[in-house]
Amino acid sequence: MNEYLSPLEWRAGRLHLLDQRLLPAVETWLAYDDEAGVAAAIRDMVVRGAPAIGCVAAFGVVLGLRRGRPLDEVVATLRATRPTAVNLFWALERMRRVVLAGADPEAEALAIWQDDIDRCRRIGRAGAALIPDGATVLTHCNAGALATGGYGTALGVVRAARAAGKRVQVLADETRPVLQGARLTAWELQRDGIPVTVITDSMAAHFFAQGAITCAVVGADRIARNGDFANKIGTYGVAVLCHAHGVPFYCAAPLSTVDLGTPDGTGIPIEERAPAEVTHVREIQLCPAGISVRNPAFDVTPARLVAAIITEEGVVRPPFGPALAAAGAAVGAAVGAAAAAAASGDYPPKNA
Amino acid sequence: MNEYLSPLEWRAGRLHLLDQRLLPAVETWLAYDDEAGVAAAIRDMVVRGAPAIGCVAAFGVVLGLRRGRPLDEVVATLRATRPTAVNLFWALERMRRVVLAGADPEAEALAIWQDDIDRCRRIGRAGAALIPDGATVLTHCNAGALATGGYGTALGVVRAARAAGKRVQVLADETRPVLQGARLTAWELQRDGIPVTVITDSMAAHFFAQGAITCAVVGADRIARNGDFANKIGTYGVAVLCHAHGVPFYCAAPLSTVDLGTPDGTGIPIEERAPAEVTHVREIQLCPAGISVRNPAFDVTPARLVAAIITEEGVVRPPFGPALAAAGAAVGAAVGAAAAAAASGDYPPKNA
Repeated sequence: MNEYLSPLEWRAGRLHLLDQRLLPAVETWLAYDDEAGVAAAIRDMVVRGAPAIGCVAAFGVVLGLRRGRPLDEVVATLRATRPTAVNLFWALERMRRVVLAGADPEAEALAIWQDDIDRCRRIGRAGAALIPDGATVLTHCNAGALATGGYGTALGVVRAARAAGKRVQVLADETRPVLQGARLTAWELQRDGIPVTVITDSMAAHFFAQGAITCAVVGADRIARNGDFANKIGTYGVAVLCHAHGVPFYCAAPLSTVDLGTPDGTGIPIEERAPAEVTHVREIQLCPAGISVRNPAFDVTPARLVAAIITEEGVVRPPFGPALAAAGAAVGAAVGAAAAAAASGDYPPKNA
Repeated sequence: MNEYLSPLEWRAGRLHLLDQRLLPAVETWLAYDDEAGVAAAIRDMVVRGAPAIGCVAAFGVVLGLRRGRPLDEVVATLRATRPTAVNLFWALERMRRVVLAGADPEAEALAIWQDDIDRCRRIGRAGAALIPDGATVLTHCNAGALATGGYGTALGVVRAARAAGKRVQVLADETRPVLQGARLTAWELQRDGIPVTVITDSMAAHFFAQGAITCAVVGADRIARNGDFANKIGTYGVAVLCHAHGVPFYCAAPLSTVDLGTPDGTGIPIEERAPAEVTHVREIQLCPAGISVRNPAFDVTPARLVAAIITEEGVVRPPFGPALAAAGAAVGAAVGAAAAAAASGDYPPKNA
């Protein structure tokens, strides 16, 4: 579908996902034939990254309908997976409307996927202008090809800056607890020959103090109407460090990540995941048995710490509210419906 | 020697160390008969924590002299282990002077150990006054019994606050890459029945934003004359977060940690440790093979972010310079000599 790495493939009517839980040690693709399997893959983080989850959920609808399951049940199964990224609800709503209108679900899922790659490329081109030659870009988690249909949002900006001839290197937070930076960002940048250095999340402050960081670019799982946004836990800390050191902090995301139905960050539900992600790395126990842990998977960065939001429609500067509302029109009324769906509360409650 | 946990024991003329690399899964004590073994134990982090390293190095001198090794060689071997914590140089200088004066090395090492425990208890009592009833104290790394002769500095403050009848719970950063928070702080607090919750380092910012943190208390590996101090990598980030959220940030350390010979934090050498600490957890590979990593083991927190330094002589408030100089007199001229020794540059260069 494109010359870049993608975390999904659609071949012979089956969905194939690169198992991101096993990277970088093992590259295994898993095949899916029904919506329940796709829902489990999203929940268990075989695939992760807000735009990628949206693409995968669309194919989950195709698979569920082909098995004769009712549309509403298929959508409900796929919705009850992860609560924070709004792209999931956006893609499901887009699929639901198209199916109700009698159009071909497979063609629509393929369009959502291709569309996401195209939007990533436009995000990259828009954001590349913000990256100076010789920059060291700090990123957190993985907002790369593996988190999208392909190419990436934050890493798409890096790719586009390099394609424009700029020398750019990446400093990648390892991103505990699931280590998407160490495992995924490092892997896909190494694969593309882009210079990358991995640090623990706790080291970023030290490199800010040393003046080693030109800017930070991260992705987003949900952007509220005022520009507050949720992203992988630890993102807010990076934003505070940028502010304290006078370094620009950028968020790169497609407009399908904007949730105009949520006024500000306080309305974004934060998923709390299993304690074992914190207490163990695979079978190795890090903490004493029986210890109390917390594991919020996301945090909220307030708009006041964001220098710009990089979208496929261009670079949006503060105040974000009016610009996001205008740009949001580009992705249609489904955005509002997606917000309503996300707010309807049928995600399993915390600690369920 | 005391009713509290200590990371060292001196029995029948042998030094025994609790192997902190294996906690919390396994409690194993290793025995040492010579200074080379003790030096390796410090370098490999069988024992860690600035005050504990000082105590252990003192017994290393005892062991080396008993084997007939020249004093200067014994001291040089023990000095060439870790460069940042100044207590190591302080304890070695104290031992050197006592031996040259013809006193009993074993008695002096025992005195350094007992003295450290006593100082921790006084730090605890002084710091307890800063901790409100019902507090949630964020700490980073392990500045507890395991990092000292016993009782702890930052965790000594928590222990003393609880002994004074206050309800106090601890939020413990796991402290990548070596996970002293998840492995050691959690273990020793759980053992004492003190409520503790482990989070990844990247989660602290989220809990600051939620108003869940009353104050932060950390230890120190070296405090410069102006109050800038080095501590475990990630400490500086905690200090920035405290400042951004209006939460007091405290450093708890004995005066043996003060290096009056170093004017400010720029003069503190920062140890860079092996990449494998970042790329692997035991045998599990986190990053792609061949990836570039950085691994500074410490960072420097500027005095302007520190609300108070809690010492055995009381709580020191800014400006720290005059107060530290006066209090430094309490630990004698060895401080200056230790600083000179630390600055002499015979630690193996970075990446050696």
